[in-house]
Amino acid sequence: MAHQCALVSAVMKQRYFDDLKVGDRFKSEPLRVTEKKLIEFADKFDPQMFHLSRKGAERTIFKGLIASGWHTAAMTMRLFVQTLNFAKGAIGLGVDKLRWPNAVRPGDVLTVETRILGVRPSRSRPRYAIVRLRNVTTNQRGEVMQTMLASAMVRRRLRRRALKPADNRTTDPKTTGPKQ
Amino acid sequence: MAHQCALVSAVMKQRYFDDLKVGDRFKSEPLRVTEKKLIEFADKFDPQMFHLSRKGAERTIFKGLIASGWHTAAMTMRLFVQTLNFAKGAIGLGVDKLRWPNAVRPGDVLTVETRILGVRPSRSRPRYAIVRLRNVTTNQRGEVMQTMLASAMVRRRLRRRALKPADNRTTDPKTTGPKQ
Repeated sequence: MAHQCALVSAVMKQRYFDDLKVGDRFKSEPLRVTEKKLIEFADKFDPQMFHLSRKGAERTIFKGLIASGWHTAAMTMRLFVQTLNFAKGAIGLGVDKLRWPNAVRPGDVLTVETRILGVRPSRSRPRYAIVRLRNVTTNQRGEVMQTMLASAMVRRRLRRRALKPADNRTTDPKTTGPKQ
Repeated sequence: MAHQCALVSAVMKQRYFDDLKVGDRFKSEPLRVTEKKLIEFADKFDPQMFHLSRKGAERTIFKGLIASGWHTAAMTMRLFVQTLNFAKGAIGLGVDKLRWPNAVRPGDVLTVETRILGVRPSRSRPRYAIVRLRNVTTNQRGEVMQTMLASAMVRRRLRRRALKPADNRTTDPKTTGPKQ
């Protein structure tokens, strides 16, 4: 029951750039990786023998089924999005140093810890700001499954009086929507 | 018919490290992105309003539905795996400079061009080698949707006589399987 309440409150709270500062840390809910979902993802996006079937994977260097690194990345995104819950979303600008030091296996339970590394207003879009962050994905034994650095564009709280007229002009999304 | 034959031959041919040299380029088959699949991926892994429904996405900065960057990355992996078709698979070690300069939209048709940037034998595993590559994902208009650098571990052709006894010992996957 307490767990449910915490989840609801996390879903309710919409976060803005203004709520973040360098050094802030956030920890996600857990997410269990099932064999079925692991194979389903691989079948669509990474059809290699160590991801596709238990039997085939036993004959590989991994001696068993492992998740695609891109599946781990996608699950990490899900946990990140749920946890931070940015108002108007987080628009991914880029990712660096994406690493998979250990392989995710069926039954693993993943959590993501997000650390805010940098925050700055967008130069071209005054309603937005750029957040630089590090996501570390661990399993139920605390083993690191994935690390990455990312930059995302998120909304600032609107304070119209604080915006200069020139800024207002450049923020019209009808004429200046981002490419991504 | 000619197209089918080319596809079959691509599927049949298993590639090893020894088949690659710096500067080699490979172009994938095309892959169409449907609205259904785009939303399905977002629902599972990136539930943000610009990925989830046409109507909701129209009210965002993108003025319409766009694919999650992680979906674009996953589709890129699928095309890369199909095209290169490494014997025993390609084991992802890491990714850098993952960027999404344009957003993928429903109906887009993606292709991936892979360029080999570096090849070197693995220091610790004589049966394997490390390939450094760049993947560029474009749409039907040639617009760049995603760029990335990646390192992957792939198999070398076995030439037992060329391996020193000490090397043979360290390559036994029963005792020295990689973490990933």
